[in-house]
Amino acid sequence: MTSLRGRGGVGRGPESRRGGEMAAEQDPEALAAARPLLTDLYQATMALGYWRARRAREQAEFELFFRGCPFGGAFALAAGLRDCVRFLRAFRLRDADVQFLASVLPPDTEPAFFEHLRGLDCSDVTVRALPEGSLAFPGVPLLQVCGPLLVVQLLETPLLCLVSYASLIATNAARLRLIAGPKKRLLEMGLRRAQGPDGGLTASTYSYLGGFDGSSNVLAGQLRGVPVAGTLAHSFITSFLGTEVPPNPMLAPAASQGPRVDLAACVEAWLDRVCAHLGLGVQEPHRGERAAFVAYALAFPRAFQGLLDTYSVQRSGLPNFLAVALALGELGYQAVGVRLDSGDLLQQAQEIRKIFRTISAQFQVPWLESVSITVSNNINEEELARLAQEGSEVNVIGIGTNVVTCPRQPSLGCVYKLVSVGGQPRMKLTEDPEKQTLPGSKAAFRLLGADGGAV
Amino acid sequence: MTSLRGRGGVGRGPESRRGGEMAAEQDPEALAAARPLLTDLYQATMALGYWRARRAREQAEFELFFRGCPFGGAFALAAGLRDCVRFLRAFRLRDADVQFLASVLPPDTEPAFFEHLRGLDCSDVTVRALPEGSLAFPGVPLLQVCGPLLVVQLLETPLLCLVSYASLIATNAARLRLIAGPKKRLLEMGLRRAQGPDGGLTASTYSYLGGFDGSSNVLAGQLRGVPVAGTLAHSFITSFLGTEVPPNPMLAPAASQGPRVDLAACVEAWLDRVCAHLGLGVQEPHRGERAAFVAYALAFPRAFQGLLDTYSVQRSGLPNFLAVALALGELGYQAVGVRLDSGDLLQQAQEIRKIFRTISAQFQVPWLESVSITVSNNINEEELARLAQEGSEVNVIGIGTNVVTCPRQPSLGCVYKLVSVGGQPRMKLTEDPEKQTLPGSKAAFRLLGADGGAV
Repeated sequence: MTSLRGRGGVGRGPESRRGGEMAAEQDPEALAAARPLLTDLYQATMALGYWRARRAREQAEFELFFRGCPFGGAFALAAGLRDCVRFLRAFRLRDADVQFLASVLPPDTEPAFFEHLRGLDCSDVTVRALPEGSLAFPGVPLLQVCGPLLVVQLLETPLLCLVSYASLIATNAARLRLIAGPKKRLLEMGLRRAQGPDGGLTASTYSYLGGFDGSSNVLAGQLRGVPVAGTLAHSFITSFLGTEVPPNPMLAPAASQGPRVDLAACVEAWLDRVCAHLGLGVQEPHRGERAAFVAYALAFPRAFQGLLDTYSVQRSGLPNFLAVALALGELGYQAVGVRLDSGDLLQQAQEIRKIFRTISAQFQVPWLESVSITVSNNINEEELARLAQEGSEVNVIGIGTNVVTCPRQPSLGCVYKLVSVGGQPRMKLTEDPEKQTLPGSKAAFRLLGADGGAV
Repeated sequence: MTSLRGRGGVGRGPESRRGGEMAAEQDPEALAAARPLLTDLYQATMALGYWRARRAREQAEFELFFRGCPFGGAFALAAGLRDCVRFLRAFRLRDADVQFLASVLPPDTEPAFFEHLRGLDCSDVTVRALPEGSLAFPGVPLLQVCGPLLVVQLLETPLLCLVSYASLIATNAARLRLIAGPKKRLLEMGLRRAQGPDGGLTASTYSYLGGFDGSSNVLAGQLRGVPVAGTLAHSFITSFLGTEVPPNPMLAPAASQGPRVDLAACVEAWLDRVCAHLGLGVQEPHRGERAAFVAYALAFPRAFQGLLDTYSVQRSGLPNFLAVALALGELGYQAVGVRLDSGDLLQQAQEIRKIFRTISAQFQVPWLESVSITVSNNINEEELARLAQEGSEVNVIGIGTNVVTCPRQPSLGCVYKLVSVGGQPRMKLTEDPEKQTLPGSKAAFRLLGADGGAV
């Protein structure tokens, strides 16, 4: 277990309070993402109840845990700890927050209660936590939060909010990684399907923790250091009719030696040869798609990827890609590969790899046979298992909705339960046995037998 | 359709740019929640592709729509428009944003491209939208976004992110409201189950739009004006052993006339009478629970609610509640009611209402028979239908996970498709017929027959 204690710098008194507010201003993400009022109203009404009963400063301990592993699985990953620490360090009710609480609490509430709220911070709160990304099991506390009763009660909702989804998404990502095996590259691309901006940022951050290789989410790269990836969408392709002339189709060779070459003209020459090899008419591949590929290749000659399924994979996307890739190859550039976003992804990948191999042999371009095949389109655990099977030619798998929204179980259902007050254990004895709690502070042990296996 | 155009104030030039940055600083929520880099990397790579092809300023139009109604239903509600407008008005890449993009784009990218990015805003972008909260149907655009190709492409991911979940949650809430009927009070309380802080804020905001009466989320009250509600949790009750003496159990009558009364002593007197009436031993109701109720009643004499299922509803929670409610009644206060959070909610509500009626008659306290019964505990559409049936004694229904995570379908699956460039229609002709797009700008009509029904 890791023990964390709020920094002295966020202590009491007007000077350090100013420090705390400034820190929050310099960190607008923390300020906006998880403010102290991001809590259920009953935490505030209970705070008043505790304060009136003169119990606000009694030492209390809560444990945050889940009752069952998500997705019918046998484990979860603990995550979100960093966000919790950040939230706890910045925790302070601003004047506007206290004024809002006053507006929803009874009008005869004593001003001294609001003074108490204004002075709150987490300098007396201690959090013990499972290390970020470690295995977690039902009933074992992910967080143990000790401190003054009133404050640790107020923290319930934000801590649950910060830990539950982070742990769920990390667990989901880890499950997908286990299915995919170590060699497939997994990309999270679910920002547009997430629960708003921060849901997307959280998803990108914690799917990376859970074992994904990167994300499409640029903000996750900027703010969280997640590797980002992405090339082009169908809209880029449909925006070209083929009647546009690229203003400057001239491209210098990769080695920067030799004359610049008209890439567009070179692509047309290669298209003839590719179509002849594939038995296609040279008019079949869509000229707008080809213009889009050329425009993209001119911008990214070292990172050209073809998105194949805007019109027809076999009759348009693939020959257009091959023409551009071979033209680039003539100049010393190796294309990155292709992406498929519809249809039977496994089967298409096999067919495409076969064509890569024959083209590679035909035109003596050895690197072409092993360029990467990226697939996406609503991939879930079952489809992932299919794509990851022995002999699959798929190299990179983009997953959006099914990693971000966790449709098999969209919430982890963590709870935050009082286990002791003033050193005395507390227990809930409801008639629903599943909801009963185990009183007293816990310590988790992992017992290993002589053979190293878990007992 | 509503037509919106970016305010002139967020126009071009260094002065207005400063204005834009200041506006963003004054609105840290907008800054943090949906920054321009909250987008997929391929939007930025395509931006470079358009810019290199000299197409950045071509007029383009995208449509944002969904392909099928969520939850197997027959409608959706369009929502998130306000967040989109806010995002568009604040849209501007800061230096740090451009520097980050430069770090992930090819090192030989022309500086002029980054200059172009620094000058971007949405002053030339026009958005037509379905009015917030209106009915939406498959294929009908929720947003039609016109403007320079490069900018409107960059907007794809953030607009999808802002509209999809907002519309999904509003639709889910509306379905739950239709099931519950107009009379039940519906409260959203899913913050702890949401996809992080902003997921929770979005859920609270748009479940209110969809027909809920309020939320437990205090921040949604403060920032979005959503009515907030909440009283107490099990932890408040288990924190009391009954050995604590409330420091001041004296309570003045509601009318502020007459002497103050020792509420704790008055509750004990009522407990004898209640237990005698219910045939319970006076030692059966948990004294810690009663102490918690008394403490809460002292803090909220005009808003006392009992949470009944911490120990035993029938043998503890209910008699304790009745003793406190009757003691408060003697002082002229009317309790708000009770909450149940486990077990068969419908059946318990019937039993409790029956006891309320007999106690009400026995002790001649007419208001007691109609105090509200609030229920919660993983309520989904099926359970809601049960709780809302004819003769149900449930008055208020709290829903968390099942409104916030939309487990029946956790994403709406909106898409954002290019329909024209330079006034010419564009179309995607993929071999997957479901993914084909209908080219050209759309106008939606609602045709009503002579009888007022939809045609």
